[in-house]
Amino acid sequence: MPENTQAPRRPGLDTSSARIRSAVRQALVERANSADAEGDAPVFVALSGGPDSLALADALAFEARSAGIFAGAIIVDHGLQEGSDLVAERTAATARELGLEPVIVRRVSVGTEGGPEAAAREARYAALSEVAREHGSDTVLLAHTRDDQAETVLLGLARGAGARSLAGMAPRSGLYARPLLGIDRVDTVGSCAARGLTPWIDPHNFDPSYARVRVRETILPMLEAELGPGIAKALARTADQAREDADAFEDMIEEFIEEIVEHAEAGIAVSVQALAANPAALRNRIIRLVAQGEFGVSLERSHTLEIAELVTRWRGQGPIDVPGIRVHRDNGLIVFTAAGALG
Amino acid sequence: MPENTQAPRRPGLDTSSARIRSAVRQALVERANSADAEGDAPVFVALSGGPDSLALADALAFEARSAGIFAGAIIVDHGLQEGSDLVAERTAATARELGLEPVIVRRVSVGTEGGPEAAAREARYAALSEVAREHGSDTVLLAHTRDDQAETVLLGLARGAGARSLAGMAPRSGLYARPLLGIDRVDTVGSCAARGLTPWIDPHNFDPSYARVRVRETILPMLEAELGPGIAKALARTADQAREDADAFEDMIEEFIEEIVEHAEAGIAVSVQALAANPAALRNRIIRLVAQGEFGVSLERSHTLEIAELVTRWRGQGPIDVPGIRVHRDNGLIVFTAAGALG
Repeated sequence: MPENTQAPRRPGLDTSSARIRSAVRQALVERANSADAEGDAPVFVALSGGPDSLALADALAFEARSAGIFAGAIIVDHGLQEGSDLVAERTAATARELGLEPVIVRRVSVGTEGGPEAAAREARYAALSEVAREHGSDTVLLAHTRDDQAETVLLGLARGAGARSLAGMAPRSGLYARPLLGIDRVDTVGSCAARGLTPWIDPHNFDPSYARVRVRETILPMLEAELGPGIAKALARTADQAREDADAFEDMIEEFIEEIVEHAEAGIAVSVQALAANPAALRNRIIRLVAQGEFGVSLERSHTLEIAELVTRWRGQGPIDVPGIRVHRDNGLIVFTAAGALG
Repeated sequence: MPENTQAPRRPGLDTSSARIRSAVRQALVERANSADAEGDAPVFVALSGGPDSLALADALAFEARSAGIFAGAIIVDHGLQEGSDLVAERTAATARELGLEPVIVRRVSVGTEGGPEAAAREARYAALSEVAREHGSDTVLLAHTRDDQAETVLLGLARGAGARSLAGMAPRSGLYARPLLGIDRVDTVGSCAARGLTPWIDPHNFDPSYARVRVRETILPMLEAELGPGIAKALARTADQAREDADAFEDMIEEFIEEIVEHAEAGIAVSVQALAANPAALRNRIIRLVAQGEFGVSLERSHTLEIAELVTRWRGQGPIDVPGIRVHRDNGLIVFTAAGALG
């Protein structure tokens, strides 16, 4: 992703809106070039009414008209706040004024699993993909900005789970495209102001019981103050590179995983020789992949390393028990069995 | 690196010191197993007199005696603070009391290049390697803890230069070994207290004009407060994984870089086909490696990506000028020349 989307200034159009339109245009071109693009299906924007998605909706309406494609909006009413239906209706009216069509309001019911943020996210994405499917759409634009990306990286860093957890959000992932990952939040706010659009301000965005809000309101400003400006850009760059790295390793492993794994009655086995021949970065990922894919277990790094030592520091260790799995070395194989299966 | 160095509690020895001794013992075993270890040459500890290196020196003295190897201390007097020579002499006396031998005090003169931290570091490492060479030593132990590692990762994150800048410090790198990367600072402080050792407190460690001090005193405590405890461990895990990833990519590239690069009169050329066949993680690293290795230029990510687009989005672009280098595509090759060389 380019550091800054360069866009020629159009007379009468503010720089922020020009940047956003340029980023949306590029996303539409990429969609058109991809094999998935359907002729008449609309491109949707997921519209909360906040400054990011409002500026995106405005730019999409303009760019879709220029490109001669259909563009609609999906507004998800989470039903979590009093009057959320009114906010949704007002946002839908704005979307219609922008010329988006169809404009769909979908009310969801948010569960509790995984905490309030995760539950709301799951309900939202389910609604988005459902509406897209109903309308035969292959693309829903999400308004995540570079600032959102930086927040995601910091939250991933706090988990400490390596490149994949630092990789943040992908510019394109299945149905979803995120054209604004190279755009700063200040530009979405600026674009709304310049275009006379009044964004809805979600009070949840200031509720410090959400980790993301604390990252946005406290941590990032403090990092900027202590380490100098540009930290959001640095974090977004980190995400891009971490995602590239994680993708490359996944592709490499996919090429040979089937050859080095043997399925057995009691579990699954991986060749010691193959594990030894690969660098630690691949060896540890293969171990994690087997644990996840076969047993649904997300291994902690300390456990991954303990298992890897059956290969790299073999001195006749006995079986290793990690939550849900027993692992031992036998006859040139690292054998994974469900905990308890060996008796 | 294990999450926590497990050590059996010896009667009379506090847990912190036991952890540190165990980590030092493991480092000495690894040294003994490596081909480099010289028979009678001493292992040195770099000793500032602060709690980290004092606890390390104490543990080294004990473990070296047990293992029947020689262990000495190097004390670098940076000459940056009034009375630094007295601090050095007092520290040397403590080292001798611990039974370390030889104890070498080396006064250095610190330049200004790259800022005060970088200049002091450079002078310090030069002195350490000089003393080691003079004594035929293959190993100097450095007292960086898990907290130092976490600080290094955060400083790397602020640069946003990918896995290599997140990789922090390696447990072993040439002459230097860092046995305490899995040990928390609270344990070095605790070990000194339990063992009756009085560490010297460097006032520079509280001078907020140093970025590292701001990370230690302000940023990390705030991250712990906002995102929960365990952030230092998460950052250290990130470093371990990032280092594995960076090492793996470097090894992969080393295997084929010579085959895909052609040296020409005006510069250096890389096959478009080879760059296209590799994932972005490798392609972008190859581009950076060529720029660094051939022209001494450290490419910004935006420039790296612009060059990569000569491969991935070829539409007849003209030459790309980045600081110090001109890059163009010609006849199935990406050609790098020194800026200005093409006229």
